[in-house]
Amino acid sequence: MGNGEQPLIYLDHAATSWPKPPEVTDAVVQAMLHDAANPGRGSHAMAVRASRVLFDTRKQLAKLFNIKNPNDIAFASNTTMALNMAIKGWVKPGDHVITTSVEHNSVRRPLYYLEQTIGIQVTYVEGDERGNINMDDVAGAIQSNTTLVVANHSSNLLGTITPIDKIAELTKSKGIKLLVDAAQSAGILPVDVRGMGIDLLAFPGHKGLLGPQGTGGLYIDPQVDLVPMLHGGTGSQSEAREQPQVRPDKYEAGTQNTPGLAGLRAGVQYVLNETVQNIHNKEWTLAQRMMEGLTTVPGLKLLGPKLGEQRTGIVAFVVDGIDPSELSFILDQHYRIAVRAGFHCTPLAHACAGTSATGAVRASVGLFTTEEEVDVLTKAMREITKNYGL
Amino acid sequence: MGNGEQPLIYLDHAATSWPKPPEVTDAVVQAMLHDAANPGRGSHAMAVRASRVLFDTRKQLAKLFNIKNPNDIAFASNTTMALNMAIKGWVKPGDHVITTSVEHNSVRRPLYYLEQTIGIQVTYVEGDERGNINMDDVAGAIQSNTTLVVANHSSNLLGTITPIDKIAELTKSKGIKLLVDAAQSAGILPVDVRGMGIDLLAFPGHKGLLGPQGTGGLYIDPQVDLVPMLHGGTGSQSEAREQPQVRPDKYEAGTQNTPGLAGLRAGVQYVLNETVQNIHNKEWTLAQRMMEGLTTVPGLKLLGPKLGEQRTGIVAFVVDGIDPSELSFILDQHYRIAVRAGFHCTPLAHACAGTSATGAVRASVGLFTTEEEVDVLTKAMREITKNYGL
Repeated sequence: MGNGEQPLIYLDHAATSWPKPPEVTDAVVQAMLHDAANPGRGSHAMAVRASRVLFDTRKQLAKLFNIKNPNDIAFASNTTMALNMAIKGWVKPGDHVITTSVEHNSVRRPLYYLEQTIGIQVTYVEGDERGNINMDDVAGAIQSNTTLVVANHSSNLLGTITPIDKIAELTKSKGIKLLVDAAQSAGILPVDVRGMGIDLLAFPGHKGLLGPQGTGGLYIDPQVDLVPMLHGGTGSQSEAREQPQVRPDKYEAGTQNTPGLAGLRAGVQYVLNETVQNIHNKEWTLAQRMMEGLTTVPGLKLLGPKLGEQRTGIVAFVVDGIDPSELSFILDQHYRIAVRAGFHCTPLAHACAGTSATGAVRASVGLFTTEEEVDVLTKAMREITKNYGL
Repeated sequence: MGNGEQPLIYLDHAATSWPKPPEVTDAVVQAMLHDAANPGRGSHAMAVRASRVLFDTRKQLAKLFNIKNPNDIAFASNTTMALNMAIKGWVKPGDHVITTSVEHNSVRRPLYYLEQTIGIQVTYVEGDERGNINMDDVAGAIQSNTTLVVANHSSNLLGTITPIDKIAELTKSKGIKLLVDAAQSAGILPVDVRGMGIDLLAFPGHKGLLGPQGTGGLYIDPQVDLVPMLHGGTGSQSEAREQPQVRPDKYEAGTQNTPGLAGLRAGVQYVLNETVQNIHNKEWTLAQRMMEGLTTVPGLKLLGPKLGEQRTGIVAFVVDGIDPSELSFILDQHYRIAVRAGFHCTPLAHACAGTSATGAVRASVGLFTTEEEVDVLTKAMREITKNYGL
């Protein structure tokens, strides 16, 4: 079967969203053509416009996440950088950190590095097979030296949604800080840092917020003081040897990504117009349709929450006797369906799901995914499994 | 005098180059529209194309800087990040670092931070009034615990060019690593890491390389092993708790800026086509013209190398009795000339030049600057000083 005439069906939104709204690409181009002087450096008209781009982006993000002061957002080039800024900027020798067994390597690897180098303790609260964390286990893990809980808002493999507000109740009562990895929830699930009790929120610009790659950020509660990851020029207080204390400069040394952030601003505006609740509802409905379809595929096992339960638009699965990489390859080559096979940088979540040996196929929908595209995946999977004699 | 009809004269290339060649903006757009899946994550056709963008960009950079293995380049979102990766990834407690008094805060602040926290020693070799460093002073500063010399290739205030190969002779003979800040030389002066003996090269994508903001990188000699700044997902060896050792993954956790790097690739191709030597010659000639013109302005004092000497296209100056910020404001508002006034994140270089109290005005030319634009600056400065009664 050839694929020359078939349209691309992109089901890899959990890796990065595509396509972007035309407004996003336009905003990047307009910024490059007209506004991309160096923001915060110099006071000429274009430098002022560049600074304005950054401030407006911060304002839109503050609106989306219910952040009081936009300057409490520091930009980062991706969620991994934001998580590293938070973890390494907060945790000190002797500290104990609680996290979960459904975290991404962007949480696991920094914590492991600190365990090995500066001497910290880490407890991984085990999720069940579907990725659910038991609050009693989190409460039970708290020690007198616990200073941080790190949890994703939603698993990048299983689509499971973590009850962040419940964790926050525990952390607030003990004076522990809560860092949320919103890689799979920013623009996808409602996030309200004040309402939910989030102290640190790491988020990508290029996934649910529909911005370009190279963007993202970290919300830092005004009560939380981090050691900056980067020291350097800020365009402010040049004479000081110390990093300036004023936000966002403290956490934003070096030239920022003005065109990318202009694109992110347009992406966030798009999300605000659609409303996150509507986006979530749409993606949940598509995920249900995908799960219903895939349930009819012989030998296929779905991972994560059951049909009808809360989840994001990520649907991972395995098929008896067929390697996930092989499935992904056939879907790409013969059907022009883009999914991601393997371990998705989260061996922990695979351990929960019982797929540590094989990995899985992950199909993830986005704002522009259609029911027809979802149905093509089901049809393709039925054909493939038939060809394998299942 | 109004400015509504005047074209913008952009003389702030040392902060960021503008405009970009149309090829750069086109490459960003094409990547966003067609190639910006998540590079290194997944094996579907678009993810492979995204990986290809990154690899091609690395290849072009390797060609430009005479780097043997493109995978020895790690991308960073700006030079500051690259310098922090190098300094904090290499320097250990008890180490001694030599740097110069013409460095940017992106070198001074990370070193000061390490002095204050992990206990290192730093020697600042003093430059003369024009920013020249004496090699005997560098040699004399070497101690038995010296592990790193950090020097810019060219001052971001004075335009002075550092004889990197001479410093490398000293460092090589003593087994000391040499980190070069190429913020003002990548794409502007010939850089040959192997020929010049550079172990670590931090460079911006958005200045002389004509790429978009949000790009840059660090060349890491294969003999140099750095502690990664970021730990996290790499799309490789997901099961490992340790950061993978393979380059570039070791130093590139998280989603890379595919569209920005596509733009950088186009920018580097543009530079390679023009040739760096031609670009340097052109900018040097423009700088001479600017200096000749400004010499005729009453009360104006030029900083940095003298007329006829080697330098980059950065020309900084002060005028007796007129605040540099005021000058910059008038140039912007009345003449639509964009320059940068103040301290340029390099109080050290201002101390050399004797302008610590006032700062200076910095005019910096780029590849697309014309002789006519340079002459407009001179004319404007003559008018302004006349109005001030000079």
